[in-house]
Amino acid sequence: MKLRFLVLFSCFSFLGFGQGKTDISEINELMKKQEIAWNKADIEGFMQYYWKSDSLRFIGKSGITYGWQKTLDNYKKNYPGSEAMGVLTFENITIEQLSPESIFVIGKWSLKRKQGDVGGHYSLLWKKLKGKWVIVVDHTS
Amino acid sequence: MKLRFLVLFSCFSFLGFGQGKTDISEINELMKKQEIAWNKADIEGFMQYYWKSDSLRFIGKSGITYGWQKTLDNYKKNYPGSEAMGVLTFENITIEQLSPESIFVIGKWSLKRKQGDVGGHYSLLWKKLKGKWVIVVDHTS
Repeated sequence: MKLRFLVLFSCFSFLGFGQGKTDISEINELMKKQEIAWNKADIEGFMQYYWKSDSLRFIGKSGITYGWQKTLDNYKKNYPGSEAMGVLTFENITIEQLSPESIFVIGKWSLKRKQGDVGGHYSLLWKKLKGKWVIVVDHTS
Repeated sequence: MKLRFLVLFSCFSFLGFGQGKTDISEINELMKKQEIAWNKADIEGFMQYYWKSDSLRFIGKSGITYGWQKTLDNYKKNYPGSEAMGVLTFENITIEQLSPESIFVIGKWSLKRKQGDVGGHYSLLWKKLKGKWVIVVDHTS
């Protein structure tokens, strides 16, 4: 009986289920931290979860923005201060591990604001780079 | 000297570079076929490259559409006939193989039409399912 459990556990480990579950939980936690940072009007804190690279891609209304710094600058320009930033909520719909180093997330975002609520959908490609999960592509519409 | 090449070749094969290149070429070819089908006003032909499943996800202006049939219905409703469909061009910007079974594509689309040109960006998640590459998520904005 013990052996059977051991074999089953080994199979699960080999297939990466254990790892997958941990990685997916981690992504959920990181996105919760992003919400918290945004809702403190801390855009730099929010941006910590994006790849700090000129190869980061943000696809939005005005096309593709390349690079971490440019993405940060755009956020600051479009959301000047806590009133404009409002209260952000992420609602993940699917989180799919594509490989040990890549996870694809689809979800819904909403901003509650005095000046009017806004919202839409996102798809995110997260990658584990140097042992840390970061967003490498954000497509928000 | 021969051995050195053999070892180098084996390493490349092991790391999946050869495979990667072939898969990426294949995606480019499939998207070329999609363009051709669209430009013949053949929406069903265009849709052959999408996953024929209720789990296909299309994220567009009006949120998420689930399923192949619903996506086809939306295309037919939004593009009734060859004038509305115009001439489609895809311009892939990055194609990235995330695993032997998943490829992520970012690109630009444009429709030249008498009634006015339209265009934007897409990010596509392609998966190799039952030996065939299909789009499982299309985010178009």
